Amino acid sequence: MSPVRLPDALVERGVEGKKIVLLVLDGLGGLPHPDSGLTELETARTPHLDALAKRSSLGSMIPVSPGITPGSGPGHLSLFGYDPVEYLIGRGALSALGVGFDLRAGDLAARLNLATLDQEGRIVDRRGGRPSDDEGQRVVEKVRKHLRPPEGVEVFLQHEKEHRVVLVLRAPDLGAHLADTDPQALGVPPLPVKALDPKSERSAALLTDVLGQIMTILGDEARVNGVLARGFAAYEGYPGFQERYGLRALAIAQYPMYRGVARLVGMDVLDIPADLPGLVTVLEKHFHDYDFFFLHVKYPDSRGEDGDFTGKVKAIESVDPLIPQILELGPEVLVVTGDHSTPATFRAHSWHSVPVLLASSWARPTGARFGETECRTGDLGTFEGKHLMALALAHAGRLSKFGA
Amino acid sequence: MSPVRLPDALVERGVEGKKIVLLVLDGLGGLPHPDSGLTELETARTPHLDALAKRSSLGSMIPVSPGITPGSGPGHLSLFGYDPVEYLIGRGALSALGVGFDLRAGDLAARLNLATLDQEGRIVDRRGGRPSDDEGQRVVEKVRKHLRPPEGVEVFLQHEKEHRVVLVLRAPDLGAHLADTDPQALGVPPLPVKALDPKSERSAALLTDVLGQIMTILGDEARVNGVLARGFAAYEGYPGFQERYGLRALAIAQYPMYRGVARLVGMDVLDIPADLPGLVTVLEKHFHDYDFFFLHVKYPDSRGEDGDFTGKVKAIESVDPLIPQILELGPEVLVVTGDHSTPATFRAHSWHSVPVLLASSWARPTGARFGETECRTGDLGTFEGKHLMALALAHAGRLSKFGA
Repeated sequence: MSPVRLPDALVERGVEGKKIVLLVLDGLGGLPHPDSGLTELETARTPHLDALAKRSSLGSMIPVSPGITPGSGPGHLSLFGYDPVEYLIGRGALSALGVGFDLRAGDLAARLNLATLDQEGRIVDRRGGRPSDDEGQRVVEKVRKHLRPPEGVEVFLQHEKEHRVVLVLRAPDLGAHLADTDPQALGVPPLPVKALDPKSERSAALLTDVLGQIMTILGDEARVNGVLARGFAAYEGYPGFQERYGLRALAIAQYPMYRGVARLVGMDVLDIPADLPGLVTVLEKHFHDYDFFFLHVKYPDSRGEDGDFTGKVKAIESVDPLIPQILELGPEVLVVTGDHSTPATFRAHSWHSVPVLLASSWARPTGARFGETECRTGDLGTFEGKHLMALALAHAGRLSKFGA
Repeated sequence: MSPVRLPDALVERGVEGKKIVLLVLDGLGGLPHPDSGLTELETARTPHLDALAKRSSLGSMIPVSPGITPGSGPGHLSLFGYDPVEYLIGRGALSALGVGFDLRAGDLAARLNLATLDQEGRIVDRRGGRPSDDEGQRVVEKVRKHLRPPEGVEVFLQHEKEHRVVLVLRAPDLGAHLADTDPQALGVPPLPVKALDPKSERSAALLTDVLGQIMTILGDEARVNGVLARGFAAYEGYPGFQERYGLRALAIAQYPMYRGVARLVGMDVLDIPADLPGLVTVLEKHFHDYDFFFLHVKYPDSRGEDGDFTGKVKAIESVDPLIPQILELGPEVLVVTGDHSTPATFRAHSWHSVPVLLASSWARPTGARFGETECRTGDLGTFEGKHLMALALAHAGRLSKFGA
């Protein structure tokens, strides 16, 4: 007998109401400022979050496992209850989903960087001088026009942003265990496409053909005259939120990447206005049509990566006024957390735990405000991200008892 | 290679003395009272437990995994160090063990409800008007007398309590992946016995025969004229406490269910007086004959399920005077905890963590009293129930070092 996966096996089906809102402040967790000893979240003036914390269960969430720094994909898969070690996915597939590409099970996806090569074919700029979106779209269009797909293979090419392009090959039985062609170094040529297992030999041959054609087509360009491929991935198809949790789920996210990972787990996805009040407007509009809402705010992570402590504090503060508006809708459970830490002093994603606030009628409150210090001694303890969905479902009355 | 199971692999064999007492207050964990902000345990006057807490290691135990509400079976398996996701067992097998039935590996067990059907065979009362124990025993005796077991199959039927009856089929290779016949609804007939995998097809056919005969035999009864079957389970046989931990173990529990799960892991089981002082009298009497003692007190859970906050407080208080008597015997380790939370405000088992007190010469004391708040920041941290036995064994000096 295969092991029972909890909580899937315990999900109550056909539950009406009892809605769950998951508000993700990307990169929320921080490190103390050297002067004050307070993290970004602890420095931020967040009266609404603090009032909510007083009647919520708090905890510290380890995104994947101790010491592991997750990218956005694994970080969000974990938040959604999909152990990212089990549900492994490459950046290529995530990017394809992020640009709204209709990725199907078996598709082989990769992320391409538009790059600048010198006359000997050595890499001069791994990002092709960061072309404008117009310029990026122009060269992708040019490639599309001239590329001749290998026999029996469909090739899709889509511009993502600046130097980033998504490449998808569709054909039966494409292995995806392939090494990046991006050497992540200058002054050397791109690496050949190399299969890392026998099943991926044919994919390597097909990609060698396709990438070779792209190089030829771009050969007469001044700046963007080459491509580097990374993150090869075959998308296997995941059991979705409806199937696993009985939840009709909506993703309300400003950036393609996050809409992509939400689509991966079967959430409906909306293009929304880029400002913060827009998030809640969309939530209000669709509140009766779904059971689960994933709201994603990007800015705390961006400011953290900039090393901008004050900017990250302000990005967190700007979310605080949304809280009463969300509560006004009366969700059964509101979770506020991040997908990982991005401490401004560290200027990058990190492995540090992330504060969690879970508001529910069945909370065990312990803290006076929302911050790393209070969350550390919260009732939820320190737990791995993959358990968050079980906690949210339990507090929403959507899980039955395990065993008699 | 199969994984090493810790702590089994590290158990010191032939250790004399160094006794462990596990005192389980069923449903111990609670939620704060809206007026006081204190849980049931925090409200209770427990001078002996508090004094003990001051010199014990404290912790918060997650019964199975975050968000999961365990039934009594999985909750206790976890306390005994058997991961309940791995050692899955149905209510039928637990009930069979609970009534003292000599369940053997391969037996197929189910729990039957004596029920009332109308003339069209539709369910009128799923509990047959809650018959008296005498009445329940009478109809079970009547069925026993007339039932003709299918060829090559032994059929055992035993009354449990009120409307509850245990049914066991003994024959080679009986699959137990079967859907309940209890539709958990009124005005509809019982469901047919349905196999959920090919291996269980024969079991379904045998059960259809047996349940059909029972219906016929009870057909002329006024109230108890039908049965509903739930929790089909084949008991696979578990490695016992002696084998896994080198412990001669005794269960001292008032209710059949808890004696059943204790017998499942190879504990000796005694029928005991129903009053609390009786628990300790039995413990005193047998203290020299065993290494491990499981004492089970049911009342905190019962009062929690009643929604009776004060009643649960009193049930906890009534256990407090037993503590000095237990300590008097000089166990190496005394653990006081619950198998899950049953908050009175929630009126049901819940997923919330359970306070743990572990008294030992090697404790790291942190708290001033025994309660959720002090346990949350205790030295044992927040841990899953399946680790409790390793902690108890370690503090009792019964585990050797892992590796050189």
